[in-house]
Amino acid sequence: MSRTPDTWILTAHSPSLLGTVDVVTRYLFEQGCYVTEHHSFDDRLVNRFFIRVEFRAPEGFDESQFRMGLIERVTPFGMHTELTPPGYRAKVVIMVSKSDHCLNDLLYRQRIGQLPMEIAAVVSNHPDLEPLARWHGIPYHHFPLDPRDKPAQERQVLQVIEDSGAELVVLARYMQVLSPELCRTLDGRAINIHHSLLPGFKGAKPYHQAYQKGVKLVGATAHFINNDLDEGPIIAQGVEPVDHTHYPEDLIAKGRDIECLTLAKAVGYFLERRVFLHANRTVVL
Amino acid sequence: MSRTPDTWILTAHSPSLLGTVDVVTRYLFEQGCYVTEHHSFDDRLVNRFFIRVEFRAPEGFDESQFRMGLIERVTPFGMHTELTPPGYRAKVVIMVSKSDHCLNDLLYRQRIGQLPMEIAAVVSNHPDLEPLARWHGIPYHHFPLDPRDKPAQERQVLQVIEDSGAELVVLARYMQVLSPELCRTLDGRAINIHHSLLPGFKGAKPYHQAYQKGVKLVGATAHFINNDLDEGPIIAQGVEPVDHTHYPEDLIAKGRDIECLTLAKAVGYFLERRVFLHANRTVVL
Amino acid sequence: MSRTPDTWILTAHSPSLLGTVDVVTRYLFEQGCYVTEHHSFDDRLVNRFFIRVEFRAPEGFDESQFRMGLIERVTPFGMHTELTPPGYRAKVVIMVSKSDHCLNDLLYRQRIGQLPMEIAAVVSNHPDLEPLARWHGIPYHHFPLDPRDKPAQERQVLQVIEDSGAELVVLARYMQVLSPELCRTLDGRAINIHHSLLPGFKGAKPYHQAYQKGVKLVGATAHFINNDLDEGPIIAQGVEPVDHTHYPEDLIAKGRDIECLTLAKAVGYFLERRVFLHANRTVVL
Amino acid sequence: MSRTPDTWILTAHSPSLLGTVDVVTRYLFEQGCYVTEHHSFDDRLVNRFFIRVEFRAPEGFDESQFRMGLIERVTPFGMHTELTPPGYRAKVVIMVSKSDHCLNDLLYRQRIGQLPMEIAAVVSNHPDLEPLARWHGIPYHHFPLDPRDKPAQERQVLQVIEDSGAELVVLARYMQVLSPELCRTLDGRAINIHHSLLPGFKGAKPYHQAYQKGVKLVGATAHFINNDLDEGPIIAQGVEPVDHTHYPEDLIAKGRDIECLTLAKAVGYFLERRVFLHANRTVVL
Repeated sequence: MSRTPDTWILTAHSPSLLGTVDVVTRYLFEQGCYVTEHHSFDDRLVNRFFIRVEFRAPEGFDESQFRMGLIERVTPFGMHTELTPPGYRAKVVIMVSKSDHCLNDLLYRQRIGQLPMEIAAVVSNHPDLEPLARWHGIPYHHFPLDPRDKPAQERQVLQVIEDSGAELVVLARYMQVLSPELCRTLDGRAINIHHSLLPGFKGAKPYHQAYQKGVKLVGATAHFINNDLDEGPIIAQGVEPVDHTHYPEDLIAKGRDIECLTLAKAVGYFLERRVFLHANRTVVL
Repeated sequence: MSRTPDTWILTAHSPSLLGTVDVVTRYLFEQGCYVTEHHSFDDRLVNRFFIRVEFRAPEGFDESQFRMGLIERVTPFGMHTELTPPGYRAKVVIMVSKSDHCLNDLLYRQRIGQLPMEIAAVVSNHPDLEPLARWHGIPYHHFPLDPRDKPAQERQVLQVIEDSGAELVVLARYMQVLSPELCRTLDGRAINIHHSLLPGFKGAKPYHQAYQKGVKLVGATAHFINNDLDEGPIIAQGVEPVDHTHYPEDLIAKGRDIECLTLAKAVGYFLERRVFLHANRTVVL
Repeated sequence: MSRTPDTWILTAHSPSLLGTVDVVTRYLFEQGCYVTEHHSFDDRLVNRFFIRVEFRAPEGFDESQFRMGLIERVTPFGMHTELTPPGYRAKVVIMVSKSDHCLNDLLYRQRIGQLPMEIAAVVSNHPDLEPLARWHGIPYHHFPLDPRDKPAQERQVLQVIEDSGAELVVLARYMQVLSPELCRTLDGRAINIHHSLLPGFKGAKPYHQAYQKGVKLVGATAHFINNDLDEGPIIAQGVEPVDHTHYPEDLIAKGRDIECLTLAKAVGYFLERRVFLHANRTVVL
Repeated sequence: MSRTPDTWILTAHSPSLLGTVDVVTRYLFEQGCYVTEHHSFDDRLVNRFFIRVEFRAPEGFDESQFRMGLIERVTPFGMHTELTPPGYRAKVVIMVSKSDHCLNDLLYRQRIGQLPMEIAAVVSNHPDLEPLARWHGIPYHHFPLDPRDKPAQERQVLQVIEDSGAELVVLARYMQVLSPELCRTLDGRAINIHHSLLPGFKGAKPYHQAYQKGVKLVGATAHFINNDLDEGPIIAQGVEPVDHTHYPEDLIAKGRDIECLTLAKAVGYFLERRVFLHANRTVVL
């Protein structure tokens, strides 16, 4: 799981065809690449092939030449590939409101190097979490929401995302619904944490809903955002037992840990190139 | 948790009032009863008090006298009490269709004495599971469903329940919706196992729904039945992680173990007098 | 579980005797105290009784008078009692070395009020974590270890503990073995987190031991310290699945979350007066 | 995870060498085999390569020709391969003493087809479980232990194993230590369930040991047997939380479910060709 400092990651997906594994592994072999972990899966219900390979490149490895050769080979298969160099740290923008537990957790994990990312900015509709971001040396952008002109605020948010070159946006308890336009723009690269085991308890105040229902388990769901509120493809879910002694505020407290762990897990999967999105479901290799 | 062979169980519930704990514990003390475990909970949102006590009775303990004295004491509190003698084994009727995993599991647990129950009968709308029941020496009643006269079959079922003196009915993957009348009759004493984490995936084929949704956890819910399909008060829930390699049939296979364990846990709670039902939620002491 | 702001906690333990529950609950009733949660347990193998009660006091409640009356009543039972007022926050000293994950986690939980404590000081044999403590406004004491005079450093540590009035010392990955003298001094009020599922993998580098052994689960154990290295009474344990892809550094990374959660749980139990220590085991009510 | 009825499994392992993945995947491609799942792992600490592939063969696929060609290709890599045809059900011998929970569980799973095995025989040093085996139509061999001649009994056991053609022996709570000779003979093909989280609580009465230690988690370990008691390579482990109310008999009861699930999981891994054994650790692909 941990990689040596010279490990590359290659991922690809394509329609299910004879030879999809071979075209990748043969090319790697011919280029002198040493495969350390290989996982592929062919989804027989949607006829789609997914592959993820970790490999060590030989001395004198030429990245752009490798890419060109690869594309030439895999194009007949309709295959999309992604190559991630050793030591790559993706740029990430985190969106928050007032709750700080997920932000605190992600900042900590970046700080100790557990997640291979560079948090480029924290964006919020509230000023509250600025000191936390600042202490970690991360720029903080406070864009208040004007209820009469939400698009204006979203344009500001999007500007930061684009300027930062972020490839991932993390909604770490950002308590606003994004517009369909922004959802489309961020399709496949924005992860939200919802504080329930979706599809149960969509929408507002899920812990209060869970209390009313009298569930014996509470959980959290990290998912890609899409147009349909709380309906985006699920990446990770976490859960913990509860009982009758848990009032709504106890569920909220318990939920904090689950949310942090579940979101961090999903972000880690994304950054390690484990997540493939297809037909509203994810494959996590 | 395990009890000595001379241990009684006393449970009670009442409106929240000063003195509810004291009236119970004082009486037990005065009667020379030795409390080995005591758990009480006062739900401040619904103002209801719940208590469960395990105790050893003194020599010469007179059950009926104890009961009378108790009722006299607790009546001013509007308290309902239930007293369960040492070694008591509740009569249970199990309802099944064709799936045998939950039945197999419950029969096994009865056989080794892990659940303090006597399975009085197995009732089914199919003949398939008769050999399994017979091998364990349990009467099996096959009441086929006539779609034009479902009430007729339900009357047969209810007859068995009443004749057997069952205080608990377990729907161990009984794949028919009970009529509102039967639900009412069995109110608070019929436990169903639903193969999803309610309130997610109500109704038919929950594992197929879960597959479509792409969840990363599947679970099961044991709940009291009521009029509202899959909406009865929850007693226990179980869960296991799954991933993209789980096709619907894999979720079904994985779910079998969760269903068995979750149903057995709920039945055990009921038999040990741990479950209190109030306002569509359960307190499990 | 969450308490109203006017909730008291009363705990007690004594030899097993008829009337132990009654003496407590009757006194509470007579004083007009309203019991919201009550849990008692009688350990039949060691003949010891444990009780924990949460209650709301009546108007005009006089704490010292209540205490005096209580002691008078329970003394014949050889009962030790502890009364914790509403809103009480225990003073805690945290000891660390270089790893910051548990410290970071505890500071965060204090900051948001999830753990009812006041961290009075952080003590370390290294200077590394001072900025973290300072940012949270907590005094940091760096007492380097002189290998030729360990007792000198321990005296400094103990001085801080005593000066601060700490009732709990948390060894949040403090990588030094305490002397038998200090262990005795802190008996029953110092919690350590060990990064394995004790009694497996005692001593140094437990994750490396776990890797060598090829375990499929790793965990952490929060326990009271005592003279016997990693043998103190266990308060809480946590666990997560691992597999062959986890090299030792992966186990270490995975372990961080488990250690944080397990230590926080144990500290929470202690602060909420749930932990009773007897015969090298704990009762957690 | 579930396989179509025409799915083959190919597994292999070898020293770590450039081209190990390629030699397998290229051959599969050349033979017209369609890979549906592929998992390989290169252990960089022991320099060993492991691979598991599921594939569908083309029409007219000739198994023996495929095998011959494969061996020719992989021999230069020092690679050991194993090919498992669609629908293959391995023969298994189960050894038991008096406890029936694991046997009951395995018989059930065979019966519903959840584990692709054919239980060829049940062998025991006690007569107790014969009715259970018989009801499932499985031959039962009772070989009592003569303490003065244990080798004699082991010869009988081994005879059954060999006559049955079993490739796997499952010690489903067989409470006798096997001789070093039998351990050697069954090396890599006998799975034992030990009722603790190894390496904690080796040897006799682990639940009593766990009670004494006051652990807050109990578990079970399924492992290959070897000469060193309870020290064989671990395949799977399971765990559940417990607390102070669990007396030793409660741990035993709780442990039954964990043992069943953990053993079934390990047996399933073995039968699905997921388990590789190397240097006293397992790789489970």
